[in-house]
Parts: sequence; C-alpha cells; structure tokens
Amino acid sequence: MCELLGMECNVPTDIVFSFTGLRQRGGKTGPHGDGWGLAFYEGRATRIFREPAAACDSPLARFLAEHPIKTLLAIGHIRRRTRGPTSLANTHPFMRELWGRHWVFAHNGTLRTVRRFRLGRFQPVGTTDSEYACCVLLEALRSSFSDYPQRVTDLWQAVAEVGGELGAHGTFNFLLGDGRHLYARCATKLCYIVRRAPFGPATLADDDVRIDFSAVTTPRDRVAVVATTPLTTNEMWTQGRPGELWVFDGGQLRTTLPSKPTARRRPRPQGLHPNS
Amino acid sequence: MCELLGMECNVPTDIVFSFTGLRQRGGKTGPHGDGWGLAFYEGRATRIFREPAAACDSPLARFLAEHPIKTLLAIGHIRRRTRGPTSLANTHPFMRELWGRHWVFAHNGTLRTVRRFRLGRFQPVGTTDSEYACCVLLEALRSSFSDYPQRVTDLWQAVAEVGGELGAHGTFNFLLGDGRHLYARCATKLCYIVRRAPFGPATLADDDVRIDFSAVTTPRDRVAVVATTPLTTNEMWTQGRPGELWVFDGGQLRTTLPSKPTARRRPRPQGLHPNS
Repeated sequence: MCELLGMECNVPTDIVFSFTGLRQRGGKTGPHGDGWGLAFYEGRATRIFREPAAACDSPLARFLAEHPIKTLLAIGHIRRRTRGPTSLANTHPFMRELWGRHWVFAHNGTLRTVRRFRLGRFQPVGTTDSEYACCVLLEALRSSFSDYPQRVTDLWQAVAEVGGELGAHGTFNFLLGDGRHLYARCATKLCYIVRRAPFGPATLADDDVRIDFSAVTTPRDRVAVVATTPLTTNEMWTQGRPGELWVFDGGQLRTTLPSKPTARRRPRPQGLHPNS
Repeated sequence: MCELLGMECNVPTDIVFSFTGLRQRGGKTGPHGDGWGLAFYEGRATRIFREPAAACDSPLARFLAEHPIKTLLAIGHIRRRTRGPTSLANTHPFMRELWGRHWVFAHNGTLRTVRRFRLGRFQPVGTTDSEYACCVLLEALRSSFSDYPQRVTDLWQAVAEVGGELGAHGTFNFLLGDGRHLYARCATKLCYIVRRAPFGPATLADDDVRIDFSAVTTPRDRVAVVATTPLTTNEMWTQGRPGELWVFDGGQLRTTLPSKPTARRRPRPQGLHPNS
C-alpha cells in the first residue's frame, strides 16, 4: 500500500507543511520506502519530481521542503511496492498529455485484474497495475469526449463512472489532476480537509512540526488537502466512504459523486473494453 | 535561440561537468535566461527537471550539479525565448509517451510555419513552435509504425525524414531521446564529441572548471556529448553540417543520415499532413 497526498487551492500555496508529514512516512514513521513523487501544476502543465527511493532521507525531497513551489494543484505519493519492482518507471505519480493538458495520476491499492481491460492510446512505461489503470482511465476519457468538455460536470461524471468500473478489480483509491480539478476516489481509505478563515494552528501527526496558518494566509484563501490518513492531529478531517469520488475546484469540494461499478444491465462507460 | 545539451553513454555517467558549462550560459555567460530543463533516463522512463527561470542562479540547477544523477541518456536545454511567453508549459524539454516509452525532445531555432502541419494524437500544452513540432514529429512516427520498430534503422530513417520535412519550415536543430538512442539533428549549429580511452583532462569554456576524465572512468567507457557549441576549450568537437541527423547508441555515433526536405515529387513521410 501507498500513501496519497493532494492539494487544490484558490491561491498559489506551498505544500511543504503537508509534504513534511508525508515524507516521514516514506521510510521513517511509515513503511513506504520504495519511492516518492510530487507533481506541481502551473496552469495546464506540470512538473513532477520522482525518485525510486525513500522520501524520508532523500536530498531532493529535503530540497523541495526547503525551496517551496507555490501551486494551485499538487499531487504527491509515497510508495510501498506491492506489484512491480522499485524503479523510476514504477514510481507515482504518472503523467500523460491529453487534450493539451498534463494529467497526473497516483494510486493507493492493488488492482489485480486490471489487465482484463484493453489498452488504447496510452501505454504503460513500467510494470505496475497502477500505471496500467491510469492508461485505461485516460483512454476511457479520451474516447468519451473529443476535447476537454465544455460542461465539466460531464467530465466529473465520467471520471466517477470509469473509477467505479476499475474499482471492481481491486482496491482503487486514487488522485487525478487535470490542471484545473483534483479528483479523489475513495475505495478504502481517504480523507480531506478544507482549510479556510478563520485559520488556526495545526500540528503534524508524523513530525514535530506546528504551523499557524493564520500567519501565512489571507481571509479569502481556501486550501483543500486530501490524504490517505489525516496528516494533522488537531484538525477535523472528513473520512471518505468506499465508492465515492470527490471533485475539488477553487479550494472547495465541488461535488461528491457515487463511483461504483455499473450494474450488469447498464452499458459500460465508453472506451472501457475488456481484453478478449 | 536556445542551447542544447545531450549525453549518451555505454555506462551510467553523470552530466554535471557539461551541465555546469551549459548552465553558465543560462543568463550569465550567455543570454538564455528564460528557462532550463534537464531530462535523465532510467531505461524507458525519464524524469525531467524544468524551470521557467534562469539556470545560472537557480537553486534547483545548483542542487542537480551537487547531487549528480548517473544515466545512460540525458537531454538538456536552456531557453532564450523567441516564440511564446516564459512559462513552465513553454520550457523544454518536452515529453510524451509513445509505445510505452518516454520520448524527450528539445529544440533550438524557430519553425515559423510549423502550424501548417496537422496535429494528431499529441497536442501541445504550451504555445511554442517547438512543442508543436515535437507533437507533429511523434505523430508522424506513431503513424509510421504500429510499435517500436524491431529494425531500429527504420526508426532512424523515419526521424531523419520527418526532421528534414519540418526543417523546411525554419531552423530545426533538435535533440530527441527514446530511452535507447539519442537523435541529434543539425540545421545551423550543433557539435559532438565522443570521449573514450585514453581519457584526458578537459577545461570548460564557460566556467573555471577543469576535470581529468581519466580519474573518473574505466578504459571501456564511452560518452557521447552533443551541444550547440563546444563546451570545452581543449578538445576536438565535430561540427555538424546543415541537414544531417546523428544517431548515438552505446556511447557511439552509430550513423549520420541526411535529414533534408524530400523533393517535391517524392511522397511525404507517412503521418505528416499539411493543415488544409
């Protein structure tokens, strides 16, 4: 199993505080020492820092903590491998371009039978079930819309449906970013918090770090943070329910959609083809 | 104009020495202060460090120089913008996945009329002619082969042909990596050196740095380095001729192919479609 971290805000925000907690779990307070990655969006483009090594003692992870990059949307992951060896190709998050946007994906769980779905345009570079699922998910979106949908609620719905179908093949907690939204699906374990005024202090669960957000924010700021388990001890995190998808936009939870397998009689979401 | 840096080797090698020279040109000894990027392959996967800022005083660029990453294949770029604003999306190198490999592309020059070619599967995220050309080039390869060709010479030929066609639309010096080969096309300015035993000392042209390669190599090592202009003052660099493509593999120049526009009567390379 792995741990996920997502952040989506209405003002550029640095993710250092949350990442500091997560990276302790990468081999120190947690067993997730097989790789880590952190993607920062700037508009529709992203840059991803990835290493097939423990985050807790990575000089690069420390560098990022010391040189914060402000962003509206970030996705992070620390890996404890279950499928596929430790390598750069198997390190989350994964990225593909679709409709002139970078899409970033990170997964927690195992989808043992995901290879029953046929690949399309997107092919895995590594050997994980996670990257395979990313490719299948994006192919399903691609074949459902000719371009980034004008009515974004259609896109949200499609992500929820495809997530539900794939989720039937194992454990599918995931984060997905498209440069505008953060999608977060809960299969077993995922929680979120939206920090907004009045801001207060927060204490990390995994490190001896405390921050007073009121000193670094303005009253209009909203910051949504999603994580596998709560990163702080003195805030109220909302636990996800199995089979639901959250969509964050502008630092707010915009919607919660059911994300469960369709009943047998209903057609499969477009673009999802079982391998014959 | 921008500056290119490529390295392709038969043993994992760090690119720090060459990158140290290049990064001085990113705003200090050269005018290329609008962004920089450096891609390192590990097998078919790559990780790319990119910043829409000057390399010479970038903490991240300094970090990479101080924490070398060994690789068989690396592609770097520093940007002085001609087309498209300074942004992450417009910062080279660009990356796309094709046939389960990361392809990395960096360009020096301007292709004023490249938008006459139709886009296919790959869409630009930013607004540069360079990323547009990258998308057109990869689409042409994709539609020429159903998978990574078994006979790699066919692929080399295709890159040379498509490079030649695109090169008719401006200045098209480029580096392209597929995880196995380094392709380097010269339109106006490009040079290379292959370092091999007996190794000797080298002195950077842009910084007060000298290295004795014999102290850090074995007799079997071969390291090919490609750059816009020679990075060292006391080595013999081979200058490219306009309209030729070099293919490096295993730290050797494997072939030099003509890369010029096809004559009018010959058919265009597959997958290259003018916009109507």
